[in-house]
Amino acid sequence: MNFPRTPRSTVTYEPHLPTAPEPAPLDSDVHQRRFFIEDVFPTLDGGRFAVKRIVGEPVDVWVDIFRDGHEVTSATLRWRREGERGWRTAPLVPVENDRWHGTFVPIEIGRHIFVVEAWTAGFATWRRDTLAKQKAGLDITLELKEGRELVAAALPRAGDTAGRLQAALNMFGSAGGPRPLLAEDLAAAMAAVEPRPDLTWSQPFPLMIERPRARSGAWYEVFPRSQTDDAARHGTFDDVIARLPDVSAMGFDVLYFPPIHPIGVKNRKGKNNSLKAEPGDPGSPYAIGGAEGGHDAVHPELGTIADFRRLVAAARGHGLEIALDFATQCSPDHPWIKQHPEWFKWRPDGSMRYAENPPKKYEDITNPDFYCADRAALWQAWRDVVMFWAEQGVRIFRVDNPHTKPFPFWEWLIHEVQGRFPDTIFLSEAFTRPKVMKALAKLGFTQSYTYFTWRTGKDELSAYMAELTRHPEREYFRPNFFVNTPDILPVHLQSGEPWMFKSRVALAATLAGSYGVYNGFELLEHVPVPGKEEYLDSEKYEIRPRDWNAPGNIKAYIAQLNAIRRANPALQQTANFGFIQVDSPNVIGFVKESVAHDNVVAVAIALQKGPHDVWFHFGDMRIGPEGARRPVRAVENLVTGEWRLVEWGGVRLSIDPDHDPAVLLRCVA
Amino acid sequence: MNFPRTPRSTVTYEPHLPTAPEPAPLDSDVHQRRFFIEDVFPTLDGGRFAVKRIVGEPVDVWVDIFRDGHEVTSATLRWRREGERGWRTAPLVPVENDRWHGTFVPIEIGRHIFVVEAWTAGFATWRRDTLAKQKAGLDITLELKEGRELVAAALPRAGDTAGRLQAALNMFGSAGGPRPLLAEDLAAAMAAVEPRPDLTWSQPFPLMIERPRARSGAWYEVFPRSQTDDAARHGTFDDVIARLPDVSAMGFDVLYFPPIHPIGVKNRKGKNNSLKAEPGDPGSPYAIGGAEGGHDAVHPELGTIADFRRLVAAARGHGLEIALDFATQCSPDHPWIKQHPEWFKWRPDGSMRYAENPPKKYEDITNPDFYCADRAALWQAWRDVVMFWAEQGVRIFRVDNPHTKPFPFWEWLIHEVQGRFPDTIFLSEAFTRPKVMKALAKLGFTQSYTYFTWRTGKDELSAYMAELTRHPEREYFRPNFFVNTPDILPVHLQSGEPWMFKSRVALAATLAGSYGVYNGFELLEHVPVPGKEEYLDSEKYEIRPRDWNAPGNIKAYIAQLNAIRRANPALQQTANFGFIQVDSPNVIGFVKESVAHDNVVAVAIALQKGPHDVWFHFGDMRIGPEGARRPVRAVENLVTGEWRLVEWGGVRLSIDPDHDPAVLLRCVA
Repeated sequence: MNFPRTPRSTVTYEPHLPTAPEPAPLDSDVHQRRFFIEDVFPTLDGGRFAVKRIVGEPVDVWVDIFRDGHEVTSATLRWRREGERGWRTAPLVPVENDRWHGTFVPIEIGRHIFVVEAWTAGFATWRRDTLAKQKAGLDITLELKEGRELVAAALPRAGDTAGRLQAALNMFGSAGGPRPLLAEDLAAAMAAVEPRPDLTWSQPFPLMIERPRARSGAWYEVFPRSQTDDAARHGTFDDVIARLPDVSAMGFDVLYFPPIHPIGVKNRKGKNNSLKAEPGDPGSPYAIGGAEGGHDAVHPELGTIADFRRLVAAARGHGLEIALDFATQCSPDHPWIKQHPEWFKWRPDGSMRYAENPPKKYEDITNPDFYCADRAALWQAWRDVVMFWAEQGVRIFRVDNPHTKPFPFWEWLIHEVQGRFPDTIFLSEAFTRPKVMKALAKLGFTQSYTYFTWRTGKDELSAYMAELTRHPEREYFRPNFFVNTPDILPVHLQSGEPWMFKSRVALAATLAGSYGVYNGFELLEHVPVPGKEEYLDSEKYEIRPRDWNAPGNIKAYIAQLNAIRRANPALQQTANFGFIQVDSPNVIGFVKESVAHDNVVAVAIALQKGPHDVWFHFGDMRIGPEGARRPVRAVENLVTGEWRLVEWGGVRLSIDPDHDPAVLLRCVA
Repeated sequence: MNFPRTPRSTVTYEPHLPTAPEPAPLDSDVHQRRFFIEDVFPTLDGGRFAVKRIVGEPVDVWVDIFRDGHEVTSATLRWRREGERGWRTAPLVPVENDRWHGTFVPIEIGRHIFVVEAWTAGFATWRRDTLAKQKAGLDITLELKEGRELVAAALPRAGDTAGRLQAALNMFGSAGGPRPLLAEDLAAAMAAVEPRPDLTWSQPFPLMIERPRARSGAWYEVFPRSQTDDAARHGTFDDVIARLPDVSAMGFDVLYFPPIHPIGVKNRKGKNNSLKAEPGDPGSPYAIGGAEGGHDAVHPELGTIADFRRLVAAARGHGLEIALDFATQCSPDHPWIKQHPEWFKWRPDGSMRYAENPPKKYEDITNPDFYCADRAALWQAWRDVVMFWAEQGVRIFRVDNPHTKPFPFWEWLIHEVQGRFPDTIFLSEAFTRPKVMKALAKLGFTQSYTYFTWRTGKDELSAYMAELTRHPEREYFRPNFFVNTPDILPVHLQSGEPWMFKSRVALAATLAGSYGVYNGFELLEHVPVPGKEEYLDSEKYEIRPRDWNAPGNIKAYIAQLNAIRRANPALQQTANFGFIQVDSPNVIGFVKESVAHDNVVAVAIALQKGPHDVWFHFGDMRIGPEGARRPVRAVENLVTGEWRLVEWGGVRLSIDPDHDPAVLLRCVA
């Protein structure tokens, strides 16, 4: 044979490395576990990470269960919320080819586990075989004696069922014939109380059960300090409260703020990210920490903690939930730098090691050393920061750049916070390599920023949606599609065309369960730093008052999209997604179906200027509940209210992007 | 929402059920393991079962490795044979998108494990960043001081490399400039000796490394007692020795015997499976055990243990390896039934519980109760039986009906036997549900009987081959395609047409790495029990002398197939398989490539009477080693020696099944 040469290797001793588990010794109970329980769905990486589900929705479990031989198998699902002592039970039934199915409905949020359990159904096996022999005309006297023994053996532990078992024994004793022992209801009674030989169970599989907002919401991002009519006057929490009706009228669900903490003075950035701040420049809110405090303090010009709590309550009154930024960077003036110098890295000349991405430097911030000697205290301090804000009523955190902090830190932190506040949502702002983004979602992040912000072509949008909605991604990676961010003014928005802004927000609002808009988008703001995908005069470095009702704004368009989202559960999730055939490379077509299968919305969105006349073809698509799926018969235009019958498997659509690049159709079967 | 109602459940306490592992406490070392190491290939069920490979062949490992941040990653493969203390090392190199690749070559048979290890390359990270700053024209004085500190810190544990490190420090100290610290060879030296922060390793993944016969061999099955010229004279091991040249001339590799042990007298079966034996009827060899002994004894009429050992040696001299049956059933006369009545199940009237498949009964055999109270002694006794025959030189066991004995028993037994005799091969004779067959292969069976025996159509053969050669099946399920067995005379052979016998043996010999023929096939034996797929006058119940050179036999045809198999490594494996397009539903086309990529054989086999003129089209197929794969340019007919150039991507073939239903073509690029 002709194999490629491989390098020689020497033998070394590596005592830290794990060795294969020893096979169970001959007398181990493991050998009594006679069943294979495998290919369990839904699971993630063999149970290492939790699959995500929404409270009140059924969890469908599928599993292969089988043992040797021909005995009848019984199996059940056990599940519970983490920390509960008792187990709930749901039935498992065989479907075909050793595949079993069961369903349960978690009624509380928080981490859950489920376990699959199987055992040999002794009495059912006996009954099946005895009936077969009876049918074949064989003598079953001995079999009946054996059946009697099975019933008698189950009697002592039969509890409430003992009467039924005893009755069968009495009847058999007096009448003698096979009927009392072969009765169907005796079989049911025996199944519930008889011993469970060969009892085998799976490992526990974790599930994270969350509130609906974890999967779906429309986000709106503002800098509180810009909520002012004068760049010279720092906006306050009260200014934000005054704006709530406007944000609420646009139909948003989440109002998200960049950091609201004191900002460092040393090395403060000036306008347009200049290295030197001019007097009066407010600095980047990401340069967290100053004389007034660190991550658990509020920038004094915004107001007080009490003001903030008032804002949280006021927002709630407008149907809005406040999301805060969690950014671990510290300004050179952060109190921890003096209080805990051991939490930071220092250079040979005694200077601070600033954040950098060589050759770029960020001298207004530093990150703590997550693996410093005093790691435990540092991690606890971070946890306490998040807990502090959770106590102020914040249960949504957008996490800045989590991919540059250790994975184990996030897994620990999120588990800690959700252990106390299980309704807490963490959004990962990781614009990085795909596997790193997915790893963060596996470790516990509820939602993730995505590449959507840059995906514009039909092919690339389609490929990305296919990736996000396939297995296993659909079980744990919940996208939040942002059309823009304070850091990203994507090139396709820079020409400021209204149809493009509408197309992008319609795509975001319909493709993903969660989506986001950074303010100014609705005003078609589009002036970049030349040659870059960044906003000129970025709000990150200055206070930016705006005319929120400037002519040409698309607030009504956004409000209409958000109203349709709220009315259609199909749009409040991402994973139940399929493509629709559209005979144009410039129009994307897709369909989404609610988790309960009671709402279906088909969408066509123009990706180029128009007009477009397209044939929107459902193909062999079926909609509706499992077992009763039917073709689409008619569609209702969710904007115009117009009804159309589906003919030849589709409908013709005329799209004029200047008017509205999107057509949203509710489908009925 | 409108979810289906699910049954209510009550809460119960199930102390035996496993709970989710607690997250690691804050001070745990687990939090130092900063890397994700996931999606490891090749693995089976998350490392629960061993992947199978052949000794001397490279094991290709692929794995995703990444951590947070932008630091440079180092990673390596560690592997060893189970029980060895030291680890061997093989390099891992990044390929793309956080996917890494490495290769190692096991040089011994037996169970192995491999582990993937990753850590942060501190010096390489420093060097990359410093070079970037240098290139950007920044001052790197402080960086060089830090680099110097890294080298100095590595010095104490640098061993042989200390000189190189010290030289760099000296040069840097005297010259001052960046060159000594940024030298490439210093980077290599540092990589080998510097500390390994963030060290993270995967779980151990098991591999079973076996001899080539585990994957490939041509089997021939005979009943030793039938090796006689007179049904009244019981064949002996010496008669088998006399037949070895004939079997060897047909090119077989393995000579397999049904049980050779004493046969019970009580309830002995007569000819054609009649319930009552006539005087002189030899009984089924599967009714194991009599006055002369049990599973570790030889039927006296066959000879002695010494005769058997002589036969094993003589077979080896003819290039043949002896395979024995391992069947756990016991006749009512088996010595264990008196010696160990506690190993068996008894009925209420004190009678023995016979094997049965209601309403069918097999009163000449019983199976021990694998979960009797004295389970450990019973399992050990079975292990000792296999060990006994291994000591007589038998290293291939065909296991009868393993799917009706407990899975944990097989996993334990095979591990025990292969722990002492790692060259032992177990063939699973489980004709049962697909997942059960696959489970046995996962648990340790080297090879498996398959559904091939009944698959005749192009579509069903294609679907089955696709299933067996996909992932993960190809990693653990090694098919052994039998054209017939003593139990199965498939319906398509019952008309006795020579072309069909040739087609079937050609399919078996070329589709699967291992295949088998039960004797009589080469003589076109084909008379069934009417209406059944069973042989009339089955050799299982009587002695069947034959004329081994009867007119019309296809021994030369089989010999030619086996010679081609031996000369072409492509045919000595199953998994490297692809379909070839043939424009006829009656001809199947496929190609196989050796594991070393140095031999490629394309095959066309007629599944119906002919003649067939077909276009055999390679499409966009490429052959050859990775990185140098090229289209097929020419083919050599392995029977006629004729060469043909590939034109328009294929060749035309004329197949006359009456002459030869198969065309075997060696492909060259």
